[in-house]
Amino acid sequence: MGCAPGCFRRIWRRLCLTSGGSKIATFHFNSDNGAPVCEQVMTALLNCNQGTETAYGADQFTAALPGAYSNFFERQTFVFPVPTGTAGNGLALGAITPPYGTIFCHESAHIVTTEAGAPEFYSGGARMTLLQGEHHKISPATFEEGLQRHGIGNVHHMAVSALILTQATEAGVVYELDEIRALSAIAHRAGMKVHLDGARLANAMVHLGATPAEITWKAGVDILTFGTTKNGTMNAEAVITFDPEIATILSFMHKRAGHLFSKMRYMSVQLLSYLQDDLWRRNALQANRNAARMATALRQCSGVELVHPVHINEVFVTMPPSLLEALRNSGIHLRPWRFQRKDQGCRLVMSYSDSAEQIHRFEQVCRESSTFQG
Amino acid sequence: MGCAPGCFRRIWRRLCLTSGGSKIATFHFNSDNGAPVCEQVMTALLNCNQGTETAYGADQFTAALPGAYSNFFERQTFVFPVPTGTAGNGLALGAITPPYGTIFCHESAHIVTTEAGAPEFYSGGARMTLLQGEHHKISPATFEEGLQRHGIGNVHHMAVSALILTQATEAGVVYELDEIRALSAIAHRAGMKVHLDGARLANAMVHLGATPAEITWKAGVDILTFGTTKNGTMNAEAVITFDPEIATILSFMHKRAGHLFSKMRYMSVQLLSYLQDDLWRRNALQANRNAARMATALRQCSGVELVHPVHINEVFVTMPPSLLEALRNSGIHLRPWRFQRKDQGCRLVMSYSDSAEQIHRFEQVCRESSTFQG
Amino acid sequence: MGCAPGCFRRIWRRLCLTSGGSKIATFHFNSDNGAPVCEQVMTALLNCNQGTETAYGADQFTAALPGAYSNFFERQTFVFPVPTGTAGNGLALGAITPPYGTIFCHESAHIVTTEAGAPEFYSGGARMTLLQGEHHKISPATFEEGLQRHGIGNVHHMAVSALILTQATEAGVVYELDEIRALSAIAHRAGMKVHLDGARLANAMVHLGATPAEITWKAGVDILTFGTTKNGTMNAEAVITFDPEIATILSFMHKRAGHLFSKMRYMSVQLLSYLQDDLWRRNALQANRNAARMATALRQCSGVELVHPVHINEVFVTMPPSLLEALRNSGIHLRPWRFQRKDQGCRLVMSYSDSAEQIHRFEQVCRESSTFQG
Amino acid sequence: MGCAPGCFRRIWRRLCLTSGGSKIATFHFNSDNGAPVCEQVMTALLNCNQGTETAYGADQFTAALPGAYSNFFERQTFVFPVPTGTAGNGLALGAITPPYGTIFCHESAHIVTTEAGAPEFYSGGARMTLLQGEHHKISPATFEEGLQRHGIGNVHHMAVSALILTQATEAGVVYELDEIRALSAIAHRAGMKVHLDGARLANAMVHLGATPAEITWKAGVDILTFGTTKNGTMNAEAVITFDPEIATILSFMHKRAGHLFSKMRYMSVQLLSYLQDDLWRRNALQANRNAARMATALRQCSGVELVHPVHINEVFVTMPPSLLEALRNSGIHLRPWRFQRKDQGCRLVMSYSDSAEQIHRFEQVCRESSTFQG
Repeated sequence: MGCAPGCFRRIWRRLCLTSGGSKIATFHFNSDNGAPVCEQVMTALLNCNQGTETAYGADQFTAALPGAYSNFFERQTFVFPVPTGTAGNGLALGAITPPYGTIFCHESAHIVTTEAGAPEFYSGGARMTLLQGEHHKISPATFEEGLQRHGIGNVHHMAVSALILTQATEAGVVYELDEIRALSAIAHRAGMKVHLDGARLANAMVHLGATPAEITWKAGVDILTFGTTKNGTMNAEAVITFDPEIATILSFMHKRAGHLFSKMRYMSVQLLSYLQDDLWRRNALQANRNAARMATALRQCSGVELVHPVHINEVFVTMPPSLLEALRNSGIHLRPWRFQRKDQGCRLVMSYSDSAEQIHRFEQVCRESSTFQG
Repeated sequence: MGCAPGCFRRIWRRLCLTSGGSKIATFHFNSDNGAPVCEQVMTALLNCNQGTETAYGADQFTAALPGAYSNFFERQTFVFPVPTGTAGNGLALGAITPPYGTIFCHESAHIVTTEAGAPEFYSGGARMTLLQGEHHKISPATFEEGLQRHGIGNVHHMAVSALILTQATEAGVVYELDEIRALSAIAHRAGMKVHLDGARLANAMVHLGATPAEITWKAGVDILTFGTTKNGTMNAEAVITFDPEIATILSFMHKRAGHLFSKMRYMSVQLLSYLQDDLWRRNALQANRNAARMATALRQCSGVELVHPVHINEVFVTMPPSLLEALRNSGIHLRPWRFQRKDQGCRLVMSYSDSAEQIHRFEQVCRESSTFQG
Repeated sequence: MGCAPGCFRRIWRRLCLTSGGSKIATFHFNSDNGAPVCEQVMTALLNCNQGTETAYGADQFTAALPGAYSNFFERQTFVFPVPTGTAGNGLALGAITPPYGTIFCHESAHIVTTEAGAPEFYSGGARMTLLQGEHHKISPATFEEGLQRHGIGNVHHMAVSALILTQATEAGVVYELDEIRALSAIAHRAGMKVHLDGARLANAMVHLGATPAEITWKAGVDILTFGTTKNGTMNAEAVITFDPEIATILSFMHKRAGHLFSKMRYMSVQLLSYLQDDLWRRNALQANRNAARMATALRQCSGVELVHPVHINEVFVTMPPSLLEALRNSGIHLRPWRFQRKDQGCRLVMSYSDSAEQIHRFEQVCRESSTFQG
Repeated sequence: MGCAPGCFRRIWRRLCLTSGGSKIATFHFNSDNGAPVCEQVMTALLNCNQGTETAYGADQFTAALPGAYSNFFERQTFVFPVPTGTAGNGLALGAITPPYGTIFCHESAHIVTTEAGAPEFYSGGARMTLLQGEHHKISPATFEEGLQRHGIGNVHHMAVSALILTQATEAGVVYELDEIRALSAIAHRAGMKVHLDGARLANAMVHLGATPAEITWKAGVDILTFGTTKNGTMNAEAVITFDPEIATILSFMHKRAGHLFSKMRYMSVQLLSYLQDDLWRRNALQANRNAARMATALRQCSGVELVHPVHINEVFVTMPPSLLEALRNSGIHLRPWRFQRKDQGCRLVMSYSDSAEQIHRFEQVCRESSTFQG
């Protein structure tokens, strides 16, 4: 590329971050968190805003949650609405981990890198034991080896209590069902519970063609954070468990942490709407398809590397400065991303709300780029 | 009344809780949490839902919060949106109380009775030291005496760290400005911080005719939970402080507890809308007036006792079964309330959304009741 | 008495606290914590100090603990040595109380008044629910009523988790076996565990003539802090449980809090020596007898009131200034004690190490006092 | 060696762990925690056991602590006796780390590997950020780089709060004074406090020829755990700080965790005796010299590798099975030790109490071994 890595990084950052002078509309593919609330959910919120209701979850919408989700998961399901994934993960881990316990997780898990110590807070002092693995996935062998190195029942260490899997991972890669089953089996043999961080679970389900039951309890998952915000709602995630004992613990922790909303109906109605007419699937499908199209366009350019397989709505990529510049000149700004063992690159996250025009323009820039190889 | 207290309680509960056979519309004055989101806020939410925005609070609405609130409070103000009052109180107390500290509060404070140990959770193990006082208010003398009994700096006890005042109290009674000043002065002399639980702060401000500055930092308040949900928004409270050091602590705790919303704009826009065109004042004024009218109607009936002064939008009352029955037959159902040193009675909470018809019908039933004395 | 209460208090404090001018040896009956280590325990410590041993509890003395204590309690017993009663109570309560739980206790329990929030620390944020009762005892009726007021399973409150009884109480009064049984039965029906703070358990056993089994698990006690320091050892208390699940939790918490001593043998040998040749009984018997003699002497003086029954080695008393002065002139200094609903008085605590001369001189002063009535 | 690594490990473990059939006395160099209490300290304990004293630290021995230690450290010093290093480290870190803070430490630090999560417990949920470094030392460059990667003030991460250095490290290697100074300077620039885990600080001081002041506050250390147990006392470590604000926090936490002993005099007298007539120096010197002699003997044998420099009383070594067997046949049993990047080896820890005969026999076996090369 004709310049040293440090030099490249400077150029690259300028290209990513500085604003172009053009007059055309600019697009960002920064995050699915940036998307607005989808129409179906907004309509449900408006419909819910009629007249008074009983507070603190004794309303008709909240009353409908257990049934709707038990139906969705094909089993008795306990649902605890929370406003963020951080709250959900913290609450879930706190419910299955004693203060003297340790939670096994991937070293790049969101819960480790960008949730500010929520598991330590919600558990009252547990520790994260970090494991490595390609594409941010933990392999059964790595988990087994980590457990042996830690020891079970050694009071000088901490009690092994939970395994957390991110589905899909922070690299946008999906655990296969048999991988989850193998990991859960190891965890359960060691007396641990299995938690799924499902911030993008709908996208993973769509990728696998798996049912909610298959991707969770049928594979050994005890508790999960079921994300809906990134896929079309306003601010509603759910901690979901199938275990009545964990549900009892959660019921106290949920209130205590301040997640029992006084006007709970506005949380519950989002979670209900998300299941209605397969909204979750339609939105996730759209977002995954957008990502697939953009990955296809990128693959046709030389000097581009897709750092992780593209399973869901995320594309991690390194590309030549010329392509980055061409995108930017067309009003498409990409988010810089630091990979562990690579030059810096970009993360693109697509959502249900990306317009056909956005995707089309992206494809066009790739095709017209000097790096295009067809 | 011709029957023993136990007998009365049974009758009373039947009157309160069983559904009448009439066909007329029923009204409840259970809680201001039952009211819907007011039109101005709902419109603001819809306007905010246009296009994408940057996540995690880097959006234009959140950017406008500090300015709007600093203007409101006439001083540099740090604002942390939270979804519930329990979260707000927990977070605020946790930011000013070390785990080995103790928080002085009224024995009937919401934070003690119905927030499931949030202060203990957010502080990591602090303790509530309970004080008594009429109408759920702490008097300066009681606080002073409590501090002396506890001792300051005695390691066998806990470190005195915070005083929490509920404004208005759970009895719907408002602290005068000079009471807050006197309590704050004692707290500050002991090295403690002062927190205000302002779930109904707007109602208290309207009652006092006090400015936001006067009722908070000018009276010595270091930090407060500023409630908006009960007064017209969907689910937005704010922890507010004027102290940059507390704000730094809060910034970490706020994220860690899962209150940094990914789509923060929907929280921030509610808090902005609440200040716009004095929405807070208009709604609170309406709710307070409704309460005043109903208290006036009740006072004209014999056998009725207003248990606490009616300062804001709450009326606590004991009444003869005949009046209770007359109300019920007119479709007005009241919420049973257990007073500490009295027969059981009712709590009525009015809100901005009560219809003129509701208030009018209530007045009419009183006037037509056999207990009416004019 | 010819002077106002305030005036009396000043005189009284001068008498208690100022040093007399006499040359005779002065005695204090301040606390059984002031007594030295008894000869049998000191000899055991010296014998233990021969050669090297394996660290962290893998030594021969620690190996003998479970057997010795299982024999003592007539059941499989798990023993965790701790250096203080505060550590013991905190650890025990933390092992049976989740962070979202509440511990029912007497408002005057040591754990509430003078252990600096140890239960909150060890539990990670639980709350103490305070009950009242004469002589610092909780009656079954009071406990039952407290539970009903709190509610079981109400998430707005906290989960009921533990009952702590102090045996003997801070007033030196002993729970009868049927009282413990009744309280335990209520606790267990509510799903709670029962903890005994046994800082002076030996003295209570001697008073009741009860076996270790009878006063603990046979009466429904799940876990206890077994004090030995006040009764002759250097710094060895033990958390004791009969429940293997609680023992597993304790094993991690015990290490984590820093109570797994590297040279554990010196802790274990104290706990072993305490049981040998009924040392616990001999020392407690002596201390109780000393208290009984002094109580008898005091009862013979007019104007003296024994505030609580004298069951063990503690005497709580109010007395005329003249008697206090006579004692002081004889070199006997008493510790001021503030009673909740009385004029200020004194607390006398006797120990196995009080000399016959001390007791005798005390009796003599009473007999020669102007208040003596024989 | 003629056999595969796995095979070697099996042989090796048999040699280390199985008991020899010989009749000669066996020696272990397992741990300095196995040594008995030295005579001077035991005598002091006996002398302290005369008559009654005031409890909870209001005794004459505890009163002498601040003076003795301020003299030792040449500056006003606050001393908090604790029974174990785990308690000391936990308490110290908890006093300088908020629950939302992170503590930078070496990945092999004792506080990470074998203290069961004490820092998380005492801090109420902080996190350990792990750094790497040869001989278990953190270099200034590594620390600086770790800080930059973590970011300062980023609320999605945790607040940087403390740096912990182990002096000497778990590899028996000592930080030079200028290394501590450089590390402290970086920490202080980032607003962090510096804690020293000084379980073997006396040995490090002897190695460096540094004064207590030089190795601590003069090099930027804010707080330390000062170990004495491994070097001759029974169970007395001290948390030591020079900062009055930290001392105030510690005073509450110390009591709350159950470390304010009722018979505190027996703790304090150990800490006093440890300084008297340079006991700390004499014992550490002896232990270090023993290690140096054994290292010298080992270096003369072929196939032996000293894995870390021998600075204090610890020797980490890999050796041929034949030498291990020769030692074992002479009654010298060594403790297996797993090195991170090496075949398994042994850890030898010497103490003041090793007999001349033990050291001599060890040297003799080396000299007579077939691997001896002079």
